[in-house]
Amino acid sequence: KPVTRIEWDLQQIERGGYPHFMLKEIFEQPTTVENTMRGRLILEEGFSKLGGLNISKEDLLKVDNIIITACGTSWHSALIGEMMIEELCRIPVEVEYASEFRYRNPIVTPTTLCIVISQSGETADTLAAMREAKRRGARTLGLVNVVGSTIAREDDGGIYLHAGPEIGVASTKAFTSQVVALALFTLKLARLKNLSVARGREIAQALADLPAQIQSILDRAPEIEELAEEFKRASNFLYLGRGYNFPAALEGALKLKEISYIHAEGYPAAEMKHGPIALIDEMMPVVCIAPHDAVFDKITSNIQEVKARKGKIIAITTREEPSLAGKLDYEFRIPETVDLLTPILASVPLQLLAYYIAVKRGCNVDQPRNLAKSVTVE
Amino acid sequence: KPVTRIEWDLQQIERGGYPHFMLKEIFEQPTTVENTMRGRLILEEGFSKLGGLNISKEDLLKVDNIIITACGTSWHSALIGEMMIEELCRIPVEVEYASEFRYRNPIVTPTTLCIVISQSGETADTLAAMREAKRRGARTLGLVNVVGSTIAREDDGGIYLHAGPEIGVASTKAFTSQVVALALFTLKLARLKNLSVARGREIAQALADLPAQIQSILDRAPEIEELAEEFKRASNFLYLGRGYNFPAALEGALKLKEISYIHAEGYPAAEMKHGPIALIDEMMPVVCIAPHDAVFDKITSNIQEVKARKGKIIAITTREEPSLAGKLDYEFRIPETVDLLTPILASVPLQLLAYYIAVKRGCNVDQPRNLAKSVTVE
Repeated sequence: KPVTRIEWDLQQIERGGYPHFMLKEIFEQPTTVENTMRGRLILEEGFSKLGGLNISKEDLLKVDNIIITACGTSWHSALIGEMMIEELCRIPVEVEYASEFRYRNPIVTPTTLCIVISQSGETADTLAAMREAKRRGARTLGLVNVVGSTIAREDDGGIYLHAGPEIGVASTKAFTSQVVALALFTLKLARLKNLSVARGREIAQALADLPAQIQSILDRAPEIEELAEEFKRASNFLYLGRGYNFPAALEGALKLKEISYIHAEGYPAAEMKHGPIALIDEMMPVVCIAPHDAVFDKITSNIQEVKARKGKIIAITTREEPSLAGKLDYEFRIPETVDLLTPILASVPLQLLAYYIAVKRGCNVDQPRNLAKSVTVE
Repeated sequence: KPVTRIEWDLQQIERGGYPHFMLKEIFEQPTTVENTMRGRLILEEGFSKLGGLNISKEDLLKVDNIIITACGTSWHSALIGEMMIEELCRIPVEVEYASEFRYRNPIVTPTTLCIVISQSGETADTLAAMREAKRRGARTLGLVNVVGSTIAREDDGGIYLHAGPEIGVASTKAFTSQVVALALFTLKLARLKNLSVARGREIAQALADLPAQIQSILDRAPEIEELAEEFKRASNFLYLGRGYNFPAALEGALKLKEISYIHAEGYPAAEMKHGPIALIDEMMPVVCIAPHDAVFDKITSNIQEVKARKGKIIAITTREEPSLAGKLDYEFRIPETVDLLTPILASVPLQLLAYYIAVKRGCNVDQPRNLAKSVTVE
């Protein structure tokens, strides 16, 4: 492939009035999510059009196993992608840390599709993992943001995120666009297979509704800023979620870790009982992502377990729930959407929470210590 | 003569002179690991005999995908099992948190083998996951310790651990026996497939050598006790490993969390650069599992990254390594074995480290706060 000149100029990458790139990028998400979908969503058919896949419908339907490989935040979107694809396309998906995959002896067949996720398209481990998958005969599909990057040039096909330059070291808008891109891919493949047009339309409409829903969350950023004031002195945090929101819990924890240096850890909520619940006391804030989805009842009982040990509950919910009455110390309500898209909406307040806590602790939000924006070394 | 009341209670007698069940169970491991292998290992053929599998050779060879489901510590042994089976049997394996699996719509086929791991055989989420897998037509194989437990009664076949009763809430000997049982299963299946007799013999011999190797580590427990003295006041810990020792890092961190209430977290070493490295400063002890295995060079460079940020390195190594000279704050050397068994040997000093730190902090080691031995509720 030819080398492409990147057409981003200095004006575009200015902070545009925001104190930090990270905050600017969080607030850009209604637009960036829309850009990821632009020209790709066919509402009336409940379908998506992805011009860059570079694979025939026949070959796509021959794919019988998928590996998604990535690092860091992209690995979290990979986990969400796994759940979407398995649920709607009924194809087994394996998510692998790129750094582990490249040194394993992975099982790859000629009908393996290897999806590779990297904001920069230059992440060393992810690039090496993609090359290893190709060498073993897999077809590769890159989800990258930076046009003309190495992964984008070497993959067999791709979906650009079109989220614009991301300058803040902690990824925000690239993450939500990755999840949208994975949803577009899932929608296409599922509709080519067995998904009904009605369900396809429902998902397509839910995608189309995301920008306004994200905006409605951003409009309430001051509420999150107040919450950050309460918890800015915490030295540890736990983040819990189930199903589609387990990866959102991991991502929420990673944001806080990266920019505030607070030791935050994400967990699938039901695993708490198998060890981490020993950490809980009145000093431990626990962020629980509890939208009204298929596993809502289950996370409710996990919240009760934490509350019984006097943990401080910060809940992300979607509606008034009698079963949670009196059990939450703080609640932030997000709009409802289809289950597979909830992690996008749940992530936005968690990005803001990490941002405001870090600012209040005096941390260098855009360039946290020890971290580089794109990790081009092993 | 007046009757003298002997001031021993039943518990003291059962602990056999050890101050805690956990320490007793750690020290039992040369025997329990041997018991897991007894009558099952055929050294000269490099093969294993597992009477309880209850499946014909023909049906076993038809298995073309494996799901391993478990919780907590058993989930860590599942991750090791995944790597072993994929490497040696070349069958794709998916590891699922039992609590997540049971509420997903998992992809199960008539040629799926679902391996279920639970010390007690009563773990509610794991039992429910097994029933779900069965309902969908998978064949199930239970790895349990407690004879006659519900999972053992309901599975299609099983491998008992024969590790004897585990009383300490933090699992130790059950974990190492689980990994041994998975290795025995892998050896059998791999030899029925493509594994050479020479490689089979090498693995069988390495298994047979484990009890003496574990004993040689236990004989040096006082070294770990000294190390615990150095770090007993730490409030956070990171545990890093790659390949087979990534799950050992997760397990080491979980032990510390469970009984000392220190926030410890395990990570695949190369993921550090994608976020957690921001946590590193001179206050952060970092346990690095760095045996001389296939990924040794790679973990060396991860150790350098941590050291450059002034983290305190506690390394588990297997031999003198010029590339690590001057980079380690503390080093504990374990015997060498085949790669797939290193996590067993690496786990023993990490169990001792967690134990001694917890004791020095005055924690109730055998019955940590908030935790139950077997989690029979959701």
